[in-house]
Order: sequence, then structure tokens, then C-alpha cells
Amino acid sequence: MSEQHRLAFNTHGRGSTEITADIAALVAQSALPCGLAHVFVRHTSCGLAITENADASVRRDLETLLQRWAPDGDPAYRHDLEGDDDMAAHARSLLTGCSLSVPFADGRLLLGTWQGIYLFEHRSHGHRREIVVTLNG
Amino acid sequence: MSEQHRLAFNTHGRGSTEITADIAALVAQSALPCGLAHVFVRHTSCGLAITENADASVRRDLETLLQRWAPDGDPAYRHDLEGDDDMAAHARSLLTGCSLSVPFADGRLLLGTWQGIYLFEHRSHGHRREIVVTLNG
Amino acid sequence: MSEQHRLAFNTHGRGSTEITADIAALVAQSALPCGLAHVFVRHTSCGLAITENADASVRRDLETLLQRWAPDGDPAYRHDLEGDDDMAAHARSLLTGCSLSVPFADGRLLLGTWQGIYLFEHRSHGHRREIVVTLNG
Repeated sequence: MSEQHRLAFNTHGRGSTEITADIAALVAQSALPCGLAHVFVRHTSCGLAITENADASVRRDLETLLQRWAPDGDPAYRHDLEGDDDMAAHARSLLTGCSLSVPFADGRLLLGTWQGIYLFEHRSHGHRREIVVTLNG
Repeated sequence: MSEQHRLAFNTHGRGSTEITADIAALVAQSALPCGLAHVFVRHTSCGLAITENADASVRRDLETLLQRWAPDGDPAYRHDLEGDDDMAAHARSLLTGCSLSVPFADGRLLLGTWQGIYLFEHRSHGHRREIVVTLNG
Repeated sequence: MSEQHRLAFNTHGRGSTEITADIAALVAQSALPCGLAHVFVRHTSCGLAITENADASVRRDLETLLQRWAPDGDPAYRHDLEGDDDMAAHARSLLTGCSLSVPFADGRLLLGTWQGIYLFEHRSHGHRREIVVTLNG
């Protein structure tokens, strides 16, 4: 059995937004006894990742590394229609991925103590980002 | 409920092949009302990724970055049995991953407008690549 | 229908542990005819990946690249509470991911001949790592 829900978030440029509570709320309302919560962004220039939820400097350091791995305005890029952050955002999206899934049981996500679910905006400016959450149980 | 299908694609060396229509066709034929389409390659030297489907230069630039992240014939590699592209292909596979999943409903994949599903060949030469598609609903 | 199982592994510092047989055993015991085996680590400083199971030098070379992509003790890191490997471990976790899923049918994982499922410890020292396995069918 599957349930599907649509969410949308307004981002404010590069950086990450915690969405754990939003996903947990859908799981809490579900009648499914156990299964998987799958989260999917319908875009190619943002991403989703699970990372440490205690010290915000972890996510700041991940931004530092993403900038190193996929530099803005790299002279090797051919795709630059929308500016220096355009191709870098697609490359960051490849590295973070655009979906993730988390097991749940008895109305609760089975995340570890230090795990949070984050929406990573990979573009310099904010965007409205659509998410599909599928609960499979 | 789950359905499984087997597909195979012949690649022609490094580069990406769009397989969105192949996955969409399986979803269109399914009686499942909604759920997830999971795509899995049975190999360790190719990968799957969702990326921009409009400008082919995005995928060319991703190849440029993959070559930078996992250079062919890097002197640090110990594993080179099958040539300079051998270990590089395994490393690219770690970065792209070998599976992905996309939500569907009412016989249609819920991809965003600019999202396409691509099979990435990470070896220099072409190979026959086997894929398992699982629809969970 | 979903089934869930809990596993735990003691790691011995940086490096990978094959857990294919542990996941295969759960699939073999399941009554589900076909579906997906989802494996999830409840931590942000280790990861899961499918890679080549024949030549151990592949996984040694992946360690070499992970060290290059996310160097220990990089001067750019702000997060270093637990030592030089702390932030590097979170960054490696972003690249490998903390979950994966493999199709199964008739009690067997549908892995390719050369694919193995590995738990990657990203910290320098060993840890007890908790895993949730969800079978969806």
C-alpha cells in the first residue's frame, strides 16, 4: 500500500533547510504500520541529504566542500545559461541526489539520534521547491 | 504489491543514455494506482542519475567533472586489471549510485519538467547493461 | 506489505565490511514473493555502497579517493569537535549515502555477479553501527 503527499518549500539561496518534522508529521498521520518514507524533489538544481542535526557547522562545511567539488563558474563548463551557479547546481545535485528514503514503524521515522533530513538549495537565489513524499508499507 | 521487469541497454562507451521513456512505459502499463518506480543496474562500472533533460551540455559538463573527480589511470590506483578506465569506472559508480527511485501516480512518473532518467556508462567501451525495474505500490 | 529487521555491526575503523550475506539471509527467510530490500544506517559518519566484490584493491582505491575528496583535518573545516576525521566522516557519508535498496525475487537478491553490499566506516576508530532492513513487496 502506498500513500502520496505533496509539499513545497521556499528556499533562500545556497544552504540547507531541515524538513525532518514535515516528513515525520506525514508518517505520524499514516495508518501504515511500518515501511519506507521516500522523499523526492522535482528539480535538478537542489537536492536532499541526511546529515548531522546537532552542530550547524557540519552543514556549513558541506557547503565548503560542495563549492570545491563543483566550483561556480568553472571555465570548463559549457552550460552557463543562467549564470555561474547554474552548472554547479546540477553537479551538486548529482552528488547529493534528489531523493532519499527512511524506514518508519509505529508512526515514527527510524532515524538515528543525530540524523536530520535536509533540503539543499544548490542555486544562489531562492526557489520554490516541490517535493513528493511516498509512504510505502 | 510489487511488479518486476527486466530491461537491457547497449551502451557505446562513456556518456549517458536517456531511459525515461522506457521506465514511463512500464508505469503506464501497471495497474498499481500509485507508488515508487525503482531502477537498478546490475553492474559496478555504470550508474544511474536524474539530471537536466533540456540542454545536452549539462551531461557533457558532468562528464568533465566525473573525469576530474575520478581521473582515468590515476597513479594512486592499485586496481587496473582492465585498463585506465577500470578503477575510474568503479569510483564514478560510487558517486552516481547504481539505483534510483521515482514516485508515480495514475500511470505517470511524477518527474519535474526538467528531470530525465539517465543510464551513465562509466567504461570507455560499450557494454550490455542489465536493469531491474521494481514498481512498489 | 513490509517487514523490518534490525542488525548491528562492529566496525574496526576506516574501511568496508561486506554485509551481502546478512541481507540475503533476511530475504531468503521472507515470504514476500518479490520487491525491494532497503538497507539504512542510523548514523551520519558511516555509509553504505554497492561495489565490486572480487578484487579488494577496488575498495582500497575507493578509500584513497574518499581521502582525496574529503581530506582529514582540512583547514577549511569549522566542525572538528571529535578530531581530524570528524567532518571528513560526515562528508564521506554525503558521498556514499546512508541507505541503498536492492530488488529481490523468489527469496534472492537480484545483484549482478560482481556486486557486493558494503558498510563503509568513515571514522578512524571502530563503532557499533545499527542498521534497519526493510523488505517491501
